[in-house]
Amino acid sequence: MLAPTTDIPAPVQADAVVIGAGPVGLFQVFQLGLQGIAAHLIDALPHAGGQCAELYPDKPIYDIPGIAVCSGRELIALLQRQIAPFAPTLHLGQQVGTLASQVDGRFLLTTSMGTALLARSVFIAAGVGAFVPRTLKVDGMAALAGRQLLYQPDQAAAARAASGRHVVVYGGEEAAVQAAIACARDAASITLSHRRDVFQAAPALLAQLQELREAGRIHVLTGQITGAASAPDGSLQALTLLDPEGRTQRLPLDLLLAYLGISPRLGPIAGWGLSMERKQLAVDQATFATSVPGIYAVGDINSYPGKRKLILCGFHEATLAAFAEAERQAGHKLPLEYTTSSARLQTLLGKRH
Amino acid sequence: MLAPTTDIPAPVQADAVVIGAGPVGLFQVFQLGLQGIAAHLIDALPHAGGQCAELYPDKPIYDIPGIAVCSGRELIALLQRQIAPFAPTLHLGQQVGTLASQVDGRFLLTTSMGTALLARSVFIAAGVGAFVPRTLKVDGMAALAGRQLLYQPDQAAAARAASGRHVVVYGGEEAAVQAAIACARDAASITLSHRRDVFQAAPALLAQLQELREAGRIHVLTGQITGAASAPDGSLQALTLLDPEGRTQRLPLDLLLAYLGISPRLGPIAGWGLSMERKQLAVDQATFATSVPGIYAVGDINSYPGKRKLILCGFHEATLAAFAEAERQAGHKLPLEYTTSSARLQTLLGKRH
Repeated sequence: MLAPTTDIPAPVQADAVVIGAGPVGLFQVFQLGLQGIAAHLIDALPHAGGQCAELYPDKPIYDIPGIAVCSGRELIALLQRQIAPFAPTLHLGQQVGTLASQVDGRFLLTTSMGTALLARSVFIAAGVGAFVPRTLKVDGMAALAGRQLLYQPDQAAAARAASGRHVVVYGGEEAAVQAAIACARDAASITLSHRRDVFQAAPALLAQLQELREAGRIHVLTGQITGAASAPDGSLQALTLLDPEGRTQRLPLDLLLAYLGISPRLGPIAGWGLSMERKQLAVDQATFATSVPGIYAVGDINSYPGKRKLILCGFHEATLAAFAEAERQAGHKLPLEYTTSSARLQTLLGKRH
Repeated sequence: MLAPTTDIPAPVQADAVVIGAGPVGLFQVFQLGLQGIAAHLIDALPHAGGQCAELYPDKPIYDIPGIAVCSGRELIALLQRQIAPFAPTLHLGQQVGTLASQVDGRFLLTTSMGTALLARSVFIAAGVGAFVPRTLKVDGMAALAGRQLLYQPDQAAAARAASGRHVVVYGGEEAAVQAAIACARDAASITLSHRRDVFQAAPALLAQLQELREAGRIHVLTGQITGAASAPDGSLQALTLLDPEGRTQRLPLDLLLAYLGISPRLGPIAGWGLSMERKQLAVDQATFATSVPGIYAVGDINSYPGKRKLILCGFHEATLAAFAEAERQAGHKLPLEYTTSSARLQTLLGKRH
């Protein structure tokens, strides 16, 4: 008798997969759209923006041509508006995993959420890598992640998980303060722990924290997590904290919410077998193709003679990569058309019907 | 006794000369400014804008990154606003003439208005060439240009020249209609001549023309100029016009204002000895340097593998060219700084003091 087949979903078919929803990945979607190529867009973060959204959402950028000044967040909003006619299929909050060439020349991509994409072309616009939460470097923690240990859950997810439980929120940044406040209503208890009794957050949030501390709803404990104690079934029972005076204390809990910030990691991309130069993907300057035809690298992740890691250079790279892929799919040279004068492009843009 | 020396003005010293005030030339000024290099800007037209201003001032552009739509005129206005902190020294309404290498490594550039510039570096952003007036292909006309024959004078210049004289305005476009109207008050007589009795202009202007025709101030004559009759001293006395029925007539005049439109011409640049590829300047893709160190070519005028004549690609080229020249002048590699985070760049931009 045959074993019952497990239910493996068929991969999603895609003309193009863009990895990275930063400014260059977004503009890659636009340029592919002008070539009539629909794109899927993957990002590790739950939202578009990449470095612009994570590293300088409110800081000014002065060197985007034609835009005398905009913030990182504003640039992303402008690009999202521009690419709206070519709305990509989004796969957010998931990191790319494996990439394998198929016998028909396509590429099978999988993500950390189990999404499988069968793509004719892949555009790696992954910048400095996927922004993923920093993890606790404490023995036994890795096995708890996703169950009794959550990294960087948003306020709603934190509050949901915390309901009725004894919770430790670990971190000193605004996200940690927000999570502690969000959990305070329904948790059995909340301990907000940080290596110093100093929290970085907006004044209104800090005032709210102070009220909840005074009301006994949030307990603040200064210290660093140095160990974890588990029950025989492997479940987390208590943390060991080292306080600034060098004393150790035991902190029982049901759930640990860790906010150690997020940092970029190149991750699996480095293992895909693409030619690299000083930790960047080597590309052909005429097409921005990597060493594998059909796979392109644009923006901060690539390397070529003269390369400068500037957003405006990534826009150029994404443009030539889209032309190169369109010609590869067509099998012949394609004439340049202008959005100003081409009825075909204006129809694609939704400006003519 | 020594002959009195003729008064040759000393050339103007320049760190950088940018040829062409289209979008890429303007952004070249900006990127040079970020490198601390002040620029002089030359253009054949009396205003900035290049093709954006001449070919599609009111047409939409959809592919400038971050700008979902703007007209050619709007893009130029945006760029002029952005480069304001680095306001270039302008040399407008003049075409570049000669360019010669000097023994000290600098370049001596002259223009059609006699401006001489001694430049450490030259950035050719001349697009499809200088926009210059189309000329009348009729024997004897070349000698009259600038005296009794003016090409494309603006309304004020036309009215000034026409005062008290018998004037023929030749052309069917709005500029010709505007000139005829502008001259109507002070000229001894105005004949507006075009090969057909059809004029392309805004309805209000056409209504004004009609009124002046009915009042006998402007006489319209349909025909093409086929010849010119001159006095023994060489001065123009009359034109020969061929009308649509094939008849020839003689039209006496003092002054001819010709509006045949303007068209781009590469002009003297092609004769400077720079390496060319299919009528474009060949450049190194890492620096956008031409075959002569210190001379760069950016935008539609250059050629390299993968080249696409898009404004956004010119922005990238101008950026790498500015870096390359800054490193050439410094004699060593320069680190990349970001306008978002660099106090030095923000000071240059006038955002810090």
